[in-house]
Amino acid sequence: MTQQENRVTAGMVVIGDEILSGRTKDVNIGAVADFCTDLGIDLIEVRVVPDEMDTIVEAVNALRARCTYVFTSGGIGPTHDDITADAIARAFGVNLPINAQARAMLETRWKQAGTEVNEARLRMARIPEGADLIVNSVSAAPGFRIGNVHVMAGVPIIMRAMLEALAPTLKGGRKVMSVTVRAGVGEGTIGGPLAALQAEYPDVKMGSYPQMGNEKVMTELVLRSADQALLHEAAEKVRAMVAAAHEKAGIGPPESA
Amino acid sequence: MTQQENRVTAGMVVIGDEILSGRTKDVNIGAVADFCTDLGIDLIEVRVVPDEMDTIVEAVNALRARCTYVFTSGGIGPTHDDITADAIARAFGVNLPINAQARAMLETRWKQAGTEVNEARLRMARIPEGADLIVNSVSAAPGFRIGNVHVMAGVPIIMRAMLEALAPTLKGGRKVMSVTVRAGVGEGTIGGPLAALQAEYPDVKMGSYPQMGNEKVMTELVLRSADQALLHEAAEKVRAMVAAAHEKAGIGPPESA
Repeated sequence: MTQQENRVTAGMVVIGDEILSGRTKDVNIGAVADFCTDLGIDLIEVRVVPDEMDTIVEAVNALRARCTYVFTSGGIGPTHDDITADAIARAFGVNLPINAQARAMLETRWKQAGTEVNEARLRMARIPEGADLIVNSVSAAPGFRIGNVHVMAGVPIIMRAMLEALAPTLKGGRKVMSVTVRAGVGEGTIGGPLAALQAEYPDVKMGSYPQMGNEKVMTELVLRSADQALLHEAAEKVRAMVAAAHEKAGIGPPESA
Repeated sequence: MTQQENRVTAGMVVIGDEILSGRTKDVNIGAVADFCTDLGIDLIEVRVVPDEMDTIVEAVNALRARCTYVFTSGGIGPTHDDITADAIARAFGVNLPINAQARAMLETRWKQAGTEVNEARLRMARIPEGADLIVNSVSAAPGFRIGNVHVMAGVPIIMRAMLEALAPTLKGGRKVMSVTVRAGVGEGTIGGPLAALQAEYPDVKMGSYPQMGNEKVMTELVLRSADQALLHEAAEKVRAMVAAAHEKAGIGPPESA
């Protein structure tokens, strides 16, 4: 089986004016990226869009057509600017009724807290027809899954709880492993031989990351592959290449992490 | 003059496998968002894409067609995975020669540092034909501007230095001002009346943000508009609405920030 055949991909849509204005600094992209990597899912694109119907619909439709899974964060609260459920219903061409199960979950929590039921709060029980709920252990208001699209809250702690809830429902790809080689020379010194090794090992992805702001020059080379034997073979060659560069520069052998 | 006529917009493309794998957590989106807000530019969409030619070209072309400005971060270093300059040249249909001015900037720095000139390092002097350079005060390797697209480094400190360098070349829109009203009740309590006020003031954007993890329930309402008089009129009505909700809940008057 090739890597390609077994590839599972994801796209993410981050929804919210507050991210685009800078008022809120997003941390959900990094959380979804880590989550996908752990499951062997390749996150291939993220879009950050405002609370605007057409833009959300366009982003969700573009990504759901090309990815195995789509994850969204934001816009499922009780106020007028929370229009994600409306946009997803429009993207799938379905209605958006009050969902009895979602309403029951919310009413149970509201009863415990002595919170009144009103129209704004009931917005959170509107779920596109045909969707399954994603349990929210933090504040009860559920997310939902429709087709390959998973709609989650924007509040980071709730989003992470929803990811945990839906993890068992996702199929992962082959787990991608990584090896890091630390070089005590700059990117420019090893860029040429690294490119040659990348060409020799197309199924091992080689990334090069300069470490700024350290006392000494450092470059981290990160090799990733789903093929463990190939990964270690390529890593040996990268280590040898870095060792040669170190010797030329008069420093010791490279570290691996 | 209406707000629309004077609207200046921006899109951003974050380029790099390391963001999508979770290995690096992006902080450049927030920095560009803050930068745009300060200049009165509306950041309307961000895309995070991998180090893949076609995907970068598609994202840049989509956003440069619909935004006043596009900002990119990442992929302009010396290694084989740094293909942003190649992608921008392809998006604009121009060549990518070594730029004499960029080469001179780099060679001056390399001479000071005793760094050898090689093919990998010279990749950083490749600039699309017709582009202007963006000075990099941190590590000398320049960014560039071509058409409405501004290509910057991914290393956050360098990207911020490049933003500072290009700020005087950008036209800002009318500066958008904001007023924050803090409510000591949940979003669900005020969602209904807030939606009515939003409908009454379409040119004042009203966002509602629950504050999680505090001892007491809090909601921040952020009003934004380029029209100061209208903003303050709407803010007075929001304060009155929140005061009424507070009175009903038996708590004091709302705070403004």
